[in-house]
Parts: sequence; structure tokens; C-alpha cells
Amino acid sequence: MRVIVTKNKEEMENLTVHMLIGEMLHDQNKVNMCLTAGSTPAGVYAKLAEEVKGKEYYNHVHYYNFDEIPHKVEKKEGTTIEFLRESYLDKVGVEESHIHKLDENTYDHYDEMVQKEGGLDCILLGIGLDGHFAGDLPGYTAFENFTYKVDCDDYIRNDIAECFDYPEDIPDFYVTMGPRSFMQAKKLIMIAHGEAKAEIVDKFVNGKITVDVPSSILRTHPDITLIVDTAAGAKLNK
Amino acid sequence: MRVIVTKNKEEMENLTVHMLIGEMLHDQNKVNMCLTAGSTPAGVYAKLAEEVKGKEYYNHVHYYNFDEIPHKVEKKEGTTIEFLRESYLDKVGVEESHIHKLDENTYDHYDEMVQKEGGLDCILLGIGLDGHFAGDLPGYTAFENFTYKVDCDDYIRNDIAECFDYPEDIPDFYVTMGPRSFMQAKKLIMIAHGEAKAEIVDKFVNGKITVDVPSSILRTHPDITLIVDTAAGAKLNK
Amino acid sequence: MRVIVTKNKEEMENLTVHMLIGEMLHDQNKVNMCLTAGSTPAGVYAKLAEEVKGKEYYNHVHYYNFDEIPHKVEKKEGTTIEFLRESYLDKVGVEESHIHKLDENTYDHYDEMVQKEGGLDCILLGIGLDGHFAGDLPGYTAFENFTYKVDCDDYIRNDIAECFDYPEDIPDFYVTMGPRSFMQAKKLIMIAHGEAKAEIVDKFVNGKITVDVPSSILRTHPDITLIVDTAAGAKLNK
Amino acid sequence: MRVIVTKNKEEMENLTVHMLIGEMLHDQNKVNMCLTAGSTPAGVYAKLAEEVKGKEYYNHVHYYNFDEIPHKVEKKEGTTIEFLRESYLDKVGVEESHIHKLDENTYDHYDEMVQKEGGLDCILLGIGLDGHFAGDLPGYTAFENFTYKVDCDDYIRNDIAECFDYPEDIPDFYVTMGPRSFMQAKKLIMIAHGEAKAEIVDKFVNGKITVDVPSSILRTHPDITLIVDTAAGAKLNK
Repeated sequence: MRVIVTKNKEEMENLTVHMLIGEMLHDQNKVNMCLTAGSTPAGVYAKLAEEVKGKEYYNHVHYYNFDEIPHKVEKKEGTTIEFLRESYLDKVGVEESHIHKLDENTYDHYDEMVQKEGGLDCILLGIGLDGHFAGDLPGYTAFENFTYKVDCDDYIRNDIAECFDYPEDIPDFYVTMGPRSFMQAKKLIMIAHGEAKAEIVDKFVNGKITVDVPSSILRTHPDITLIVDTAAGAKLNK
Repeated sequence: MRVIVTKNKEEMENLTVHMLIGEMLHDQNKVNMCLTAGSTPAGVYAKLAEEVKGKEYYNHVHYYNFDEIPHKVEKKEGTTIEFLRESYLDKVGVEESHIHKLDENTYDHYDEMVQKEGGLDCILLGIGLDGHFAGDLPGYTAFENFTYKVDCDDYIRNDIAECFDYPEDIPDFYVTMGPRSFMQAKKLIMIAHGEAKAEIVDKFVNGKITVDVPSSILRTHPDITLIVDTAAGAKLNK
Repeated sequence: MRVIVTKNKEEMENLTVHMLIGEMLHDQNKVNMCLTAGSTPAGVYAKLAEEVKGKEYYNHVHYYNFDEIPHKVEKKEGTTIEFLRESYLDKVGVEESHIHKLDENTYDHYDEMVQKEGGLDCILLGIGLDGHFAGDLPGYTAFENFTYKVDCDDYIRNDIAECFDYPEDIPDFYVTMGPRSFMQAKKLIMIAHGEAKAEIVDKFVNGKITVDVPSSILRTHPDITLIVDTAAGAKLNK
Repeated sequence: MRVIVTKNKEEMENLTVHMLIGEMLHDQNKVNMCLTAGSTPAGVYAKLAEEVKGKEYYNHVHYYNFDEIPHKVEKKEGTTIEFLRESYLDKVGVEESHIHKLDENTYDHYDEMVQKEGGLDCILLGIGLDGHFAGDLPGYTAFENFTYKVDCDDYIRNDIAECFDYPEDIPDFYVTMGPRSFMQAKKLIMIAHGEAKAEIVDKFVNGKITVDVPSSILRTHPDITLIVDTAAGAKLNK
């Protein structure tokens, strides 16, 4: 595991953009990038879109999401892909055939589909305060999971409520790639910033590898890079 | 994970030999092979030595052991490397500079040393009835371990007693690569044969990934192949 | 370039079989093997078929031919694929969807097709007395060629006559992968045996890289292994 | 071969910087970069140095030069490494143990040395108006060359005169990696800009592969990217 503590959030974002572009350009044939939704990568996507949009030499890149929270009532795409479109895919003008959606229709064969496409070259992901990643929450996942469906109980419904305009639209389930799906990717880039993440970042780097901290298993991946700003890395060397 | 159930022990051994030779010849530059001691691979080493000995085009292969139980009294090499010499290295005539020994002198910098040599291209390993691998025993290891030293209590002393001619020679500690050392290798080949292994093989393939079954984490390795004979694979599809 | 001089033809064949099986088993997903027709590999295919047939764990291997001489009159497949079926593919029972034929219908998009399938993992090829490889003959090819069609003049018609039962069936053209198609493969294994090949083998290894010896450019491939018996390697160290 | 025609010199430089940083960050262990001297990359190095300097996470990068013109009289390093220090290495503050110099003392074992260091991950190079690359000039090199020494005749002395303050300092020889040294690298990035390069760029992409245009053989490299501005790419699609 490579751990990089940058001076500040901006350097963290710049470095992440460099690594993502590096992976996109590393191969001349198809490159499969899997991107995270959420607030952490907003600055990354803004900069990345600026670089990628309108350049034909990024046309060999394909995009994947690794979790999806569908709408129960509204007839539209899930909240993750919606976020990725708004913050990156639409800005760049990625053609639809290069967007490979994980959702309620694809989750039960998503790992196989991904493998047929050549496997994921790179996954960008964040880490939750409770050590979750993707939709792999403490108490709700197992290290042996590939992509799977999670039934929403009250705790989860509460947790995801902010993604929806009105409560009736909160779904009964969501789908997510599991720990083993992530372990099969060629490269993982995990990002975190801000003081609030300092404790979980330290736990991720130095704590026990246990399903109670689902992301902890990703530390064993042969090519994972953790990029944090000074605030999120503050507890690392104590 | 690739699971291969062969017709019998002989096909298991032949296939393992094919894979090991394949990895040795795959690269033209240095190839780093890490081999297991124990009774399981005896037939594999006999066949492999027959193929490799006296052939210059295997001279780029380097060898590593992944655990070592030293002698407490006798002034000689540890029991693992002793076994590997007798069953393979001496038969082939591997030159000493190509043998990279894990022992009490090297264990505290073995992972760094291995990485400087280019990393392990392939590890051949077995699986214990209790789900242990290398010296990573249930109750004595943690998923977050790199190479480490284990103090021998009565349980372990009893377990390893058979390796020694007289009890005074049983050591106070042994050394072993940990789960994370294994996860960093490029390729893992795990072998098992015989009815007695059927239950743990099934647990390894289908059970929970938990430190109580230390080998279970290796299932998440992106390039692991499990090769078993029909007897050891008997419970897999039930 | 790795040059291996074996004791005799049998060791050359055994080593080639080891390398081919090694490549087949190296990856768990699709493996793309490109095989040569001709008399040189006959012994290799006999041994390889013996190992591969009836084993499900070779089912992820796909096969390609790199040149094809069609029949002009007879309504049947070309002479290369015919040879490969008889000497290997039929013996093993390779399923039809795993056989990717280069012929008059596919040659103009064969390189693109191969790339979409993931690229060739390994090509087994021979070398002609005149330094040709595949259908790339001195005076008829150029280093800048991808897969192409060659019109048959009298020289060529004479050269390929032995492949046909009666002269009316000799075609007006043949198709072949070009030097650049070969340079894009991940691994090349070139084999030769017998005294008659000693001179061209020496030229290939030590001579000029010139289109007059079409195979000479393959020496610059980052992963090429030349395997010869003692007779074919006799002039190498003089 | 990937050919990228950018809008202008600045986009060419930005893209080259992205690719170089991408390669530097692609691996967590040692990365071996081989850099060209000359006027073409000046803008690239200025931007690259700005990004890399003072950042510890680039400390695993090692640097190599691929040719060297020594001073005959002056007691100082050769003109290539001198250029690389001024334009990049000194600005970044690369530690001396990470600079692997090709010069009159190392040229006869440079290829072996490079291989022991793990091989070159990436070479950045330009192309001359006459199709030369590195010190591989038409009429003075051969495709079969590894690193070698070239005696300077009047033509060459004239050609390199501009590198020296006074004629007495022009050397009797220079050293350069040869075509086969380049073909062994994992990735090649060739850059060119300006109208004057349009003809040779077209020749490089579409012309014959012949030793009269030494760079032409690099087209057969499995991972070469050519990046040009609109002016240098002007003749490509005619």
C-alpha cells in the first residue's frame, strides 16, 4: 500500500487527477475506469472533466459505477449514475455505449460483465467515517461478497434519505460491488480529506483487517494508493 | 479464483508441474519462485526436479521459502530449507546465490528484501486441515501481518515436534510470511489432495473469509489457482 | 531475445510444449494462441494434444492461424486450418467458437478482430530456409505490413504446389499476418530443428535485420524465445 | 501505434507531461524513465519539473539518458546529461543515486545495467528531420544495434559542433542506445512540433520501415505513442 499525504486538498485533487489521466493514457486499447459518487471527489471531477472533454484521445476510456441507489417511485436512473453524469460524464460528453451501469437490472451478472469487458483497470473510491466503502457497510457486508443487493432497513433508509427529494422515493434495496469485486481490479485509488476523516484513515492504514471496517481488506490489494490531505492524514504517524 | 478438480493425485501433480514450469519459462529475466515444504508437494518436486535439473535455461529462477522452523540446539539450517534442499534444490543443483532464505536472521526485513529482488512471481502452497497456510495458524495470526515471528507455546511445540529428532531441539519460535506478504505475490498456486482435505477445501472455497480460517483471505487474491484431486474436491459441489 | 539450444529434437519439442502449456495456464481468463502449420511442429502438437484433450481447464484457450493458402477449386477450408485441425484442434476437440480463422474473408480486418479479442498472447512459429516466416517471403513482404494478401506468381505457385492434390487447385493468392501483426503479440516462440536450418538460424540470431530476411525483425520483439536442437544451433557460436 | 495530433504545441506539451506523470505514478516501486535532450522537450521539462519538485511521492523514479556526446578537452560531464541537469534534474533535485548515466565509461555494459535495474518503463524521445532518433543516424546505425559507440567523421563533427563552445572540444566519438535498446523498453513516447517536422512525421507514420529512416523501426514497438502539434501533423492525412 502506498500512502501519500499531500499538503492540502488541492494537491490531493491534483495528484488524483494526474493518476486518473495517467491510467487513461497508459493503455492504447480500452481502459475501464470505475468512479465513485459522493462529495469527496467533486473537485477531482471538475478538474478531470476540464482536461478530458473534447479530446478524442480519451475516447477509448469506458466508465463504470460501483454502487447504485435506485428511486422507488420516480422513473429515472439511480442516484449514483445521476451524480456521475452531472459531475463528470455529461461534461465530458462520454458516449452512452461507454457507460456501463450497475443497477437493479445488471447487478446479478455485473462481475461477469466487467470481466468480459476486460476487467477494471482502476477504481477511484472514498472511505466512510465508519470504514465503509461503496455500499459495503459494517454489519451489512462480508469479505466474501461479489456484487450483491442489500435490503434497506431503517438504519440504511435514514442514511440514504439525503439522496432523495421526498421519502416515498427511498428504495427498499440498493446494489453494490462487494469486497471481492474490488480486489479483482488492477488498481485502487482511495481518497480522503478533512479532519473528520483522520481517525478512520489511521484505522484503515494501521488497524485490524476486519469486516467491522469493511475497507480494511483493500489494504491487502497489491496496487492500492491512498491519497489524503494533511488534515485527513493527521493521525497517521502518531 | 480458479478451482481445478483433477481426476486424481497424479493429474494434480502433473498440472502443478506444468504451471510451475510455465511460470519459470514465462519471463526471460529473473523469476522468483516461493516453495512450500510438507508432504503434499513431494510428488510435484520429484517430477519438477526431473525436468529442471541440468538445464541451463532454468538458471534465471530464484527460490524462496515462506516459513522456517529453526533448530534450537543443532547447529544447522532450519527444517523448511532442509526439506526443500533434499526434495528439490539439491537434486536440481540450484546455485546458492539463487536461494533466498527466510530464517531468524532475515525475517525482520524479508518483505523488503523480496521486493528489492522484484517481488515473488509465484508461490506454491498447501492448506492445513485447520485452514492454516505457511506458519499462519488460526489464533496465532492476523490478516494485517507481513513476515513475523511466532513464539511457540505448548500447542505449537506439540504440532511441530515431528520435525525434530529429539525434544530439546524444538525451538522457542518460528518465522513465517504473513497474509499480506502472500497477497503481494503475482500468482498463488494452492494444492491439496486426499479425502481428509475435502472439508477444509470446501470451507476455503465457499466459507466465510475470516481470520479463524487464515487461508480464506487468499481467495481474494486476483490470481490464485486451487488444484485438488477428486477426493479433496469431493465436497465442493454439494 | 532468449536463445535455447536443446540436446536434441525431443528436448526441443518437450520444452516447446512446456512453454505453450505454461502460457495457456498463465491466465485464468481468455488466452489467445496463434499456431503455425508445417512439418516442424508436428511432434509438438502430438504431445500438446495428449496433454490438453479432455481437460476442461484448457477451455479458456482460443486458437488463431497466422496465414492461409486457400483452395482455388475445391470447396473446403484452406490448407493451414486444415492442417491445424488434423494435427491438433480436432484431436483436442476445440469448440468451433474458439477457432478464429484467418482466411480470404477475414484477412482485411483480422488485425482489428484479433485486437478486439484481446490480442495474441503467444505465437508459435517456424523459420524458413530463406528466412521467411508465416507467408512473409523475401521479396514479397515489407516490415510495415499488417495482415495482407499476396498474389501468387510462378515462384510462389511452385513453392506451395506440394500443399495441393492437383495443380488446378493452386490458388491465385494467399493471406498472411505481416511483420507488424507479429510484433504486436505478447510472446513469440520460434522453433527450428535439423542441420539444414543451422545457417538461417545463425543468420537470424547474428545477421543483419533486413527485409531480405523477413524474420530478422522479430529479433527486436521484447519477448521472443528461439528454441533449436543441437543440429539447428550448430553454427551459433562460431 | 497511437498517433495523437494536438491542437497546438501547448496541448502537445501538456499531454506529454500527463503521460510522463502517469507513468511515474503507475508503479509504486522503482520507475525507470529515460529522457531526451534537445530543444523539442524544453517546454515539457519546465512543466514537469514544476509538478515533480519537492514531492516525495516521485522519489521512486530513476532517470536515464539514451545518448551522450562527451567533451574532448573540458573536464566535465557530457552535453546530454548537462542539458538534462539544467532543464530538469537539478530543478527537481533528483538525488544522484537515481541518475544512471550513459557515457564513455558505461556504454559497453549499459543495456545489461538497465536490465538489472528492471528495464526502462518509459522513453521520451524526439525525431530528427532526417529520421534519426537518439544518436542513431541514417548511414551510421543498424537495426541490430544495442548500445554502441560511433566514431565522429566530418559530417558528424559538423552536426554536433553547436553543442560546444570551441572546436577543440568536439569529441572523436559519441555513444548511444541502439534500435534494439529502444525496442526493449516498455513504453515509447515520441514528440514533435512545428511545420519543419511535418514531412518526417508523415514518413515515420506511413513510410517504409528501413534503416535509412532509423526511427521507422520504432513503429513496430507494441506500445509507442506519437504526439505532435497540428503543424507537425499537417501531412498525415493527405
